[in-house]
Amino acid sequence: MARPNRSREAILAAAAELAASRGISATSMDDIAQFAGVSKGSLYYNFESKNELFGALFVKVQHDLVPALQETLDGCADGQDSLRVLIGEVLVRLQAQPALAKLLVAEIFRSDRNWSESVGTFRDSLAQLFSTALAAARPDLDDARSLLLASSSLGAVLTSGLEWLVFEPERSRDEVVDALMMLLVPFSPETA
Amino acid sequence: MARPNRSREAILAAAAELAASRGISATSMDDIAQFAGVSKGSLYYNFESKNELFGALFVKVQHDLVPALQETLDGCADGQDSLRVLIGEVLVRLQAQPALAKLLVAEIFRSDRNWSESVGTFRDSLAQLFSTALAAARPDLDDARSLLLASSSLGAVLTSGLEWLVFEPERSRDEVVDALMMLLVPFSPETA
Repeated sequence: MARPNRSREAILAAAAELAASRGISATSMDDIAQFAGVSKGSLYYNFESKNELFGALFVKVQHDLVPALQETLDGCADGQDSLRVLIGEVLVRLQAQPALAKLLVAEIFRSDRNWSESVGTFRDSLAQLFSTALAAARPDLDDARSLLLASSSLGAVLTSGLEWLVFEPERSRDEVVDALMMLLVPFSPETA
Repeated sequence: MARPNRSREAILAAAAELAASRGISATSMDDIAQFAGVSKGSLYYNFESKNELFGALFVKVQHDLVPALQETLDGCADGQDSLRVLIGEVLVRLQAQPALAKLLVAEIFRSDRNWSESVGTFRDSLAQLFSTALAAARPDLDDARSLLLASSSLGAVLTSGLEWLVFEPERSRDEVVDALMMLLVPFSPETA
């Protein structure tokens, strides 16, 4: 396994933080080096360009997130349980990295960026997880495996997750999960 | 009634188009004047600053959209019908102005911008419409009037709307409305 590269980690964290608050276009390589506390030489040694850097950031987010979520899903016994657990895990990650969450929501439907391939791969892999969990939880939905409904449920979770973190932080995470489950799976045993 | 100000309209349309593709921070007043085909004098005569301009853009979007949606809702007889009609109308607007739709999704959870007050007012008024329609369509939801579930359903509609426009444009709008209604109101008469 590769040694962890601390400069690289610091650079990616700085890029996420800055881009979440001011947008990617308005975040320069100089800003990122300064915020990360690395020299410009070190920055350009790690990433030849801003496009390469943000591409790498979205690849890293996917690697950190998707296999872990998949593993969690694989450990679930039944359909409703897996959707509940998936929603809960996504909210845990949003809560841990709200800046990154805002950035992803802002980027996820762009097809006009140089790093959009890595964002697209990330979006599709997240949507795939939601598609699997939604199909299991909602056997009544003919179209449950469609990307459209996977995006809908992912969108519902991301927007209410951000609503929660930004405007209603006094709610507990469990309350948010319960509300989303009531919305998306109304005839679960608890509610029937 | 005020006379329509064509420069002002052109400037706001140009600002929405540019900001949707490159982000607000990376869109300069010079860029906007050039894209709108107006002089810088005319631009600054209409808007003293970029913050004032984007604040005005979000106020305009709200004025164009919310009363029209409210009127549509007021004309609906029953709860499920109102949610269906609301979703359909939002998709019509997304389809008409996809650049603006992407911009709104990117901005809607920011609280750190100078124009965030007008974005916040807009988000809240949209969420209020969804809250009303969702409560009528889903009397089983204790929490249906909460901003959290209003955001969830709005988020589901916006994300699947963008998914549709960007990645699955071959679907008809009615298909998208039907899929969302099946997801959000599974025990509607058509599906029970």
